[in-house]
Amino acid sequence: MKASPVSANPPSRPQQIHRFLRQHDLQAWIAWRPDELVMLSGYFPFWGASLLICFTDSEPILFVPQIEPRDHIPAGLRVQEYPWGDLKCADPYSVLVSAVGDELVKAGLKSEQVAMNPSASRISLPMQAAEQIPIPEGFAGQLSALTAKPQAQCQAAFADLYLRKTPTEVDAIRLANRVANVGLQAFSENLQAGNPEAEVAAAVESAIYRQIGRDGIFHSRGWAMVQSGPNSADAGRFNRSTGRRLENGDLVLIELATCVNGYWSDLTRTAAVGSPKAQVAQILDIVEDAQQAAIDGVRPGVSAGHIDALARDKIATQGLASFFTHHTGHHVGFRYHDPGFLILPGESAKLEPGMVITIEPGVYVPERGGGARIEDNVLVTESGHEVLSRIDRSQEP
Amino acid sequence: MKASPVSANPPSRPQQIHRFLRQHDLQAWIAWRPDELVMLSGYFPFWGASLLICFTDSEPILFVPQIEPRDHIPAGLRVQEYPWGDLKCADPYSVLVSAVGDELVKAGLKSEQVAMNPSASRISLPMQAAEQIPIPEGFAGQLSALTAKPQAQCQAAFADLYLRKTPTEVDAIRLANRVANVGLQAFSENLQAGNPEAEVAAAVESAIYRQIGRDGIFHSRGWAMVQSGPNSADAGRFNRSTGRRLENGDLVLIELATCVNGYWSDLTRTAAVGSPKAQVAQILDIVEDAQQAAIDGVRPGVSAGHIDALARDKIATQGLASFFTHHTGHHVGFRYHDPGFLILPGESAKLEPGMVITIEPGVYVPERGGGARIEDNVLVTESGHEVLSRIDRSQEP
Repeated sequence: MKASPVSANPPSRPQQIHRFLRQHDLQAWIAWRPDELVMLSGYFPFWGASLLICFTDSEPILFVPQIEPRDHIPAGLRVQEYPWGDLKCADPYSVLVSAVGDELVKAGLKSEQVAMNPSASRISLPMQAAEQIPIPEGFAGQLSALTAKPQAQCQAAFADLYLRKTPTEVDAIRLANRVANVGLQAFSENLQAGNPEAEVAAAVESAIYRQIGRDGIFHSRGWAMVQSGPNSADAGRFNRSTGRRLENGDLVLIELATCVNGYWSDLTRTAAVGSPKAQVAQILDIVEDAQQAAIDGVRPGVSAGHIDALARDKIATQGLASFFTHHTGHHVGFRYHDPGFLILPGESAKLEPGMVITIEPGVYVPERGGGARIEDNVLVTESGHEVLSRIDRSQEP
Repeated sequence: MKASPVSANPPSRPQQIHRFLRQHDLQAWIAWRPDELVMLSGYFPFWGASLLICFTDSEPILFVPQIEPRDHIPAGLRVQEYPWGDLKCADPYSVLVSAVGDELVKAGLKSEQVAMNPSASRISLPMQAAEQIPIPEGFAGQLSALTAKPQAQCQAAFADLYLRKTPTEVDAIRLANRVANVGLQAFSENLQAGNPEAEVAAAVESAIYRQIGRDGIFHSRGWAMVQSGPNSADAGRFNRSTGRRLENGDLVLIELATCVNGYWSDLTRTAAVGSPKAQVAQILDIVEDAQQAAIDGVRPGVSAGHIDALARDKIATQGLASFFTHHTGHHVGFRYHDPGFLILPGESAKLEPGMVITIEPGVYVPERGGGARIEDNVLVTESGHEVLSRIDRSQEP
């Protein structure tokens, strides 16, 4: 497998955005979905009610509700406040739409030069993560009146912007993975017979939340799901924690989503309580082997399907192909699951420098009473790859 | 204030749904938003990719993806599985839409007899709470082809179904509040000078998560946000935890969202570290006084505006009216914030038995370096009210 030639200087985020706008004859893009704001501007919205306009010819404008905290808005964004609050403004969104319209007029833009993604589905949560973003019915429709009709090709090209992370973004994803590893440390420390799954998971999430205030971390939240013994065999279908108490010999799987300052890590570890029972020990060995094979293959120019095959073939060789029921990976960073091609059989899309993907083969065998998955976040570099999620603890402060 | 006469037997959930369907000449309602499923059937979806059809003349049908756990589906729901997984079915939603269409044909229904809420905004998170529901662009549109065009009046009547909780639902909300109080106990225990806000909040969330497996609790997740000292003065605009360490004399405010088995509690407490500084002690006293006045007024037939005034007047009397910047309350239970009328000035909507509302006056005074809010969840009963969120710990097991 020979790597394709690739650019030594991946485009900056503004370069990527400007190229996208030019290619689609657009002068501006309107964004309000939380992961779009992070990707386009580095701003992680608190309420999820912020809106960004990116222009080809001038600096972006960020609209924030009056109630938004201001201390983490990146430098260089022009900020406009709009009113908010049931006692002060019954319909803040209409005020916002008017203000957006005024800015487009001021910039001399016609609706056909402006586009947006009208859908509110499949998006990241804002900092306030207990509830979905407070975008009302009709808001997208109101905004749509200011924009060109979205075309599938344009939407696809926009989704493509998620795929190549800049060095600054990679650093942010690296930080999310460093924090996630603090959680994984708590996982290891709590792997004791008698502990309920939910207590192990709670300790992990707690360790992650406590990182707020350190190293420029203003937001840190983990979602840990721990499945032990027979429950680990369900982990290919769903991940959750129950009250089951860990037993010696169990495989214990943790699925861990971590969001730090708006950037995401997606990790899985499987470990045994004491020595694993014989019937599951082999599963863990095979998954470790398959995952390492896939990681070793990551470099620019290699197809996603090839990476998938590296893992899948290892598992098939052991006669367990039918128990590896999902893809080998996906893009990650701006969301728990970024848009973009999957690492799965037959996928011809090729890896490029700056892409960050998960590598997460799994084998789940109910009749053996266990399952295992190991998942890391892997950066494609110019020369190969860097595993962002394996931390050398001796280097930690 | 004289209570209006009210029914001694509030309608059951199926009675409410059937009445709603009849009034709008409908034979069926299609639901997929997580809080809609909880409200209509008691089923809390794991992935948020389940879909329910409620009929006037037969039992509901629940469609679940192949990967959905089955152990918490309520008895009495007919369950149909649909395929899922990138290796097995590239477009599960089209398969689902076809299956829904088949059931409507089987029931002899025409599209004008079927309705749904097409919006994916402002909904509760499913059990898998790290990401929004995986409903793709176009799904609502595909389903819409099977249904009548939604009318504003019908949508409003559907939202009205959230307002009157049945005794079973009240018990579920009571359980959520009991779990939330386990978190509040951790809050009290961690209120020590030197503790960072994020550590206090992490301890609260952890205590809540650890309740899984007890008393029929299969899902328990809290979102705790702790603001101390000057940060508490921001709590009328946003709630988050920072790395600030608590100091003696601080007011410390915790905003706490808790979801247990799909039912929500929404609480706030404010307490002092040691003795509160003089300039903030009065704020806390006034808010406690205002909140109790509003709670004392809760009974059937009273308007929401009247309840708001009971709290607001107490605060105004102390010259602090301009620092109480938000509503006094909202409906709660199926979501962190249920749809329905707010408890705010001039609101003429009247309280009815079965309604569960928050009472949460707050006063935030940056120039005094502190703010306070106290929030409880209050059930309107036939004769008055019951505060669901104040737990007599002597009664606890």
